[in-house]
Amino acid sequence: MTTARREKSAPPIALLTDFGYRDHYVGVMKGVIAAIAPAAQVIDMTHGIPPQAIAAGAIALEQSWRYFPARTIFIAVVDPGVGTIGTPIAVESKAGARFIGPDNGLLRGAAEQAGIRRIVELRSPRYRLPEVSATFHGRDIFAPAAAHLWSGVRLASLGPELSAIVKPAEIFPGVSEKRNEITGSIVYTDGFGNLVTNIDRSCFERFASRFRGFRLSVRIGRSAPIEMRKTYGEADAGGSLATFGSFERLE
Amino acid sequence: MTTARREKSAPPIALLTDFGYRDHYVGVMKGVIAAIAPAAQVIDMTHGIPPQAIAAGAIALEQSWRYFPARTIFIAVVDPGVGTIGTPIAVESKAGARFIGPDNGLLRGAAEQAGIRRIVELRSPRYRLPEVSATFHGRDIFAPAAAHLWSGVRLASLGPELSAIVKPAEIFPGVSEKRNEITGSIVYTDGFGNLVTNIDRSCFERFASRFRGFRLSVRIGRSAPIEMRKTYGEADAGGSLATFGSFERLE
Amino acid sequence: MTTARREKSAPPIALLTDFGYRDHYVGVMKGVIAAIAPAAQVIDMTHGIPPQAIAAGAIALEQSWRYFPARTIFIAVVDPGVGTIGTPIAVESKAGARFIGPDNGLLRGAAEQAGIRRIVELRSPRYRLPEVSATFHGRDIFAPAAAHLWSGVRLASLGPELSAIVKPAEIFPGVSEKRNEITGSIVYTDGFGNLVTNIDRSCFERFASRFRGFRLSVRIGRSAPIEMRKTYGEADAGGSLATFGSFERLE
Repeated sequence: MTTARREKSAPPIALLTDFGYRDHYVGVMKGVIAAIAPAAQVIDMTHGIPPQAIAAGAIALEQSWRYFPARTIFIAVVDPGVGTIGTPIAVESKAGARFIGPDNGLLRGAAEQAGIRRIVELRSPRYRLPEVSATFHGRDIFAPAAAHLWSGVRLASLGPELSAIVKPAEIFPGVSEKRNEITGSIVYTDGFGNLVTNIDRSCFERFASRFRGFRLSVRIGRSAPIEMRKTYGEADAGGSLATFGSFERLE
Repeated sequence: MTTARREKSAPPIALLTDFGYRDHYVGVMKGVIAAIAPAAQVIDMTHGIPPQAIAAGAIALEQSWRYFPARTIFIAVVDPGVGTIGTPIAVESKAGARFIGPDNGLLRGAAEQAGIRRIVELRSPRYRLPEVSATFHGRDIFAPAAAHLWSGVRLASLGPELSAIVKPAEIFPGVSEKRNEITGSIVYTDGFGNLVTNIDRSCFERFASRFRGFRLSVRIGRSAPIEMRKTYGEADAGGSLATFGSFERLE
Repeated sequence: MTTARREKSAPPIALLTDFGYRDHYVGVMKGVIAAIAPAAQVIDMTHGIPPQAIAAGAIALEQSWRYFPARTIFIAVVDPGVGTIGTPIAVESKAGARFIGPDNGLLRGAAEQAGIRRIVELRSPRYRLPEVSATFHGRDIFAPAAAHLWSGVRLASLGPELSAIVKPAEIFPGVSEKRNEITGSIVYTDGFGNLVTNIDRSCFERFASRFRGFRLSVRIGRSAPIEMRKTYGEADAGGSLATFGSFERLE
């Protein structure tokens, strides 16, 4: 039998990077995947994460993974200083999703949501390209690992187990609450110019429930207060508004 | 039998949006489609329609649909004020193509070319995601509708029938003719800087046939006249020219 | 039997253009391919080659093709003055890869690496769209040729054989060596701002072996010398460095 049917249960491989659209780097990763796993479906999540913006990439991954088929293999690459930091890892989750990328905090939020089951360092030479460059792990390590995993190789075969993944504090600022104020950070600016914060709806609603009847507003730095609205369409032309976006974070 | 073969007759799902390439929004739509219809082939037409430029999106769709396989399912999303205007609809055409998107004029030109057979409002909760946000109909309504349609759900099951779709006059200016002049509008600027008008070749040739032997030229606003040429390559370096582009409109 | 299984050996069709991401042009090419060869897998290498930058496109193709499955069909389109120069050709190589595009130097480097076996001019009307525009060969000639080739049409059926492909000298400057200096050109700027030269590692190492013990540095024009390093991560924040990138060229 020489045909490769796409199994109904065969998950896609989904890619999220800061490589942009100008270069052939993403294309080469797809070529590597196609050479190892020709029947795998590859989905571009985005390659427009701002260069080296790990927090933006982490949020995009957190907000996306649950909409994909259960056993999707995610490759995420955002790395300030490729080849110098970020041990290449793969994570298997309780929810089924697999995550592959550098261990620099990029994968952690999504992997924790999905429930971390096992983490390995991608060190097995058998599942890398024969020559590994210092600067392009996406091609030489991550794409082959994903394609082999897709083809049935077990996670444990990819390298030695790790006990935890990192989450650098400087990349992921916290949210603080005091009296009548929540302070968060803008962690992401989307392509429509929406400023996305790290304040999620549940945190906000818990806070707001203490101030029923009051008017709530949002300040950015020392800006004039902006009123909360329900949808983007309620903004004055060219004006600002604050709302919870489609991913349940304050925008 | 556990395999999903891609039927020869299985059409692709084609996506056209103004979401850009920076964010994960398009990726999430593809995840939703893959989760419902894992064997569906998804084709990106473009996600670079200028934000909220309904006319540009409508023209791109008009110029593209006929090159796709007969029963392609097009999802088009360009919406100034998602969640406030643009009833979500699906259209079945005599030519076979299906169109899904907001009812704001975006779909109408292509749907009319293909011959409108039936229009429904996408209101059935069964074929939406369980939670529908106010701001991301692409993920919550359009992607699931397309994936279910692809999987064999009938159009009539997606919601109640509508009798017509809208075409806002302010978005689609007309072409006017008088004596020795046709006046149209620039409706689209492509990525090479070509200005595409709403004057099509047949309209122009009907006009030009009345002026055989005369020299024809084009003015933009009060600019100097530009001569008509046959191909881009005939322009002086850095110069302008007017021609009919590959989609038979004056550029 | 009405199903189209994707053969394990069925290669993908890979696209590389300067069409950008704003327009529907690439989408239309994919529609044409899907209409002729619905089971073909189409991979975007990049559409972000700077407009009309043949050398940049040629290098991207040279650096990518070998990572793809053996019999991949590459469509590459970068053409200053579509319709006026660049005979449409297809090339079959000893390595298996097939290359389709304008004969303007874009394909030559990759095709030579793969070993040119046969070149044809894409002239057969049977394997073009019924109407061929002067300005959009990607849609009207290249996409149909690739899809028919994928479906089993023989290269020789696409048109008459050519004896050679062009490589315009002005587009591909050479590298010159003298005493203690190699002079090359920057042929490509990637999306991270890396300046990629036409000096490859083997050329450099041959040169460097004559100066063991000396410090090597790089000048751009009359700039201050930049020291050679091993990876990007060794640069000072905001600083410059010179290294061999993942494609073995001086950056």
